Amino acid sequence: MGWVVECAIAKTNKHASRESGDTAEIVERPGGGISMIAIDGQGSGRAAKTLSSLLAAKAVALIKDGVRDGAVARAVHDHLFAFRHGQVSATLDIVSVDFRSRSVLVTRNAAAPLVIGRGELFETAPCVADPIGLFPLNRPAVWELPLEDRLLIVVGTDGIASSGRRSGMADFDVTGATRELNVASVPISILADGILAAAVARDEGRPADDMTGLVLGVRADESGAPIRRMTATIGQA
Amino acid sequence: MGWVVECAIAKTNKHASRESGDTAEIVERPGGGISMIAIDGQGSGRAAKTLSSLLAAKAVALIKDGVRDGAVARAVHDHLFAFRHGQVSATLDIVSVDFRSRSVLVTRNAAAPLVIGRGELFETAPCVADPIGLFPLNRPAVWELPLEDRLLIVVGTDGIASSGRRSGMADFDVTGATRELNVASVPISILADGILAAAVARDEGRPADDMTGLVLGVRADESGAPIRRMTATIGQA
Repeated sequence: MGWVVECAIAKTNKHASRESGDTAEIVERPGGGISMIAIDGQGSGRAAKTLSSLLAAKAVALIKDGVRDGAVARAVHDHLFAFRHGQVSATLDIVSVDFRSRSVLVTRNAAAPLVIGRGELFETAPCVADPIGLFPLNRPAVWELPLEDRLLIVVGTDGIASSGRRSGMADFDVTGATRELNVASVPISILADGILAAAVARDEGRPADDMTGLVLGVRADESGAPIRRMTATIGQA
Repeated sequence: MGWVVECAIAKTNKHASRESGDTAEIVERPGGGISMIAIDGQGSGRAAKTLSSLLAAKAVALIKDGVRDGAVARAVHDHLFAFRHGQVSATLDIVSVDFRSRSVLVTRNAAAPLVIGRGELFETAPCVADPIGLFPLNRPAVWELPLEDRLLIVVGTDGIASSGRRSGMADFDVTGATRELNVASVPISILADGILAAAVARDEGRPADDMTGLVLGVRADESGAPIRRMTATIGQA
């Protein structure tokens, strides 16, 4: 039995903010597999972007050195805490597929909902932890589950879950939106775009915060096709 | 005037080889912009993969620390030369868009052809240098050009250019293939897939070497849309 794993990240800025305070990356794991990382730096604009970019650099370097995800989260926290003295926070999400252990591993210092889909069933998983940077010896929430056909994981930064709040709406039901959007055979990238578009719409087209959505889809595949693809699209005004 | 930049990587293994000796990554640059990196480790299979993965980890970490591409190539070379004593080589390609300098920067220690497209005009650019790892103080070839509408860059690792050699064909005309495949409005990811597919076909469906193609497309865009997307698809047998 082979596997095909698809990852997609969709991301936008707070309205009228030139830079997003979120940084997101997709990197190959040296032991086989792939990791998505999202870091939401406290605040918005240039200072938040510099912070999240610096922390993402550290996380990416450690993952590519083969360090286990739980230790990466602890290291990024310790670094932030040591140099910003507990005065600056950030949220961290790492969603990995490890082909050696044949598992999906979610490692989080974030409180926004984590959606897990298994075929037609979608749930919000209780995998939350304090943001990094504020207290000594902070630890991530870790969730490991075996690869299975039609497994889907969706996590988003704060800006997605809290979209619509400005106009008094209840928090965005990301699980419900995923259930609606994840109709048969929709590509993972379209699902990620759809969730982001729904969040932007709840903010009436002017995002109240930086927004990043990460989507991971797993499919059983007879051939386990050896072709690997990566794409990125970025814009600048 | 805004810009939209699209990157795509398509990659496959040598036939009957479980792991590709090439490692490729796309990462965000801390100063604004994006970099694609491809490293082709000497040989194939697990040893080549370990080598290229280790060197890619170093390159990615340095780029994300804000180090300029030319210094990244020198550092990766020096590291390989210091620890493998000039006995192991690798090729390195870095294709970056830097939004601060509004330029495309190609940094190479590789001899496979570099294709540059400007609108309807496609050429093979003389941007080649020795592989890293073999001689002290090796330097990359560097090529910088300003962002322009409909600029297209294609580089591939050795396995693409030399496809078809086993059956006595002339080297793959990647420039010609790019000209043919790059019909109006074809997405960059489809172009990358098309070039890879053509190379695989020249090897009669059984690639004689690991193959990685990197494609970068630049478009002028009024809005410079702030949405950023990344995707990755990987398989395992």
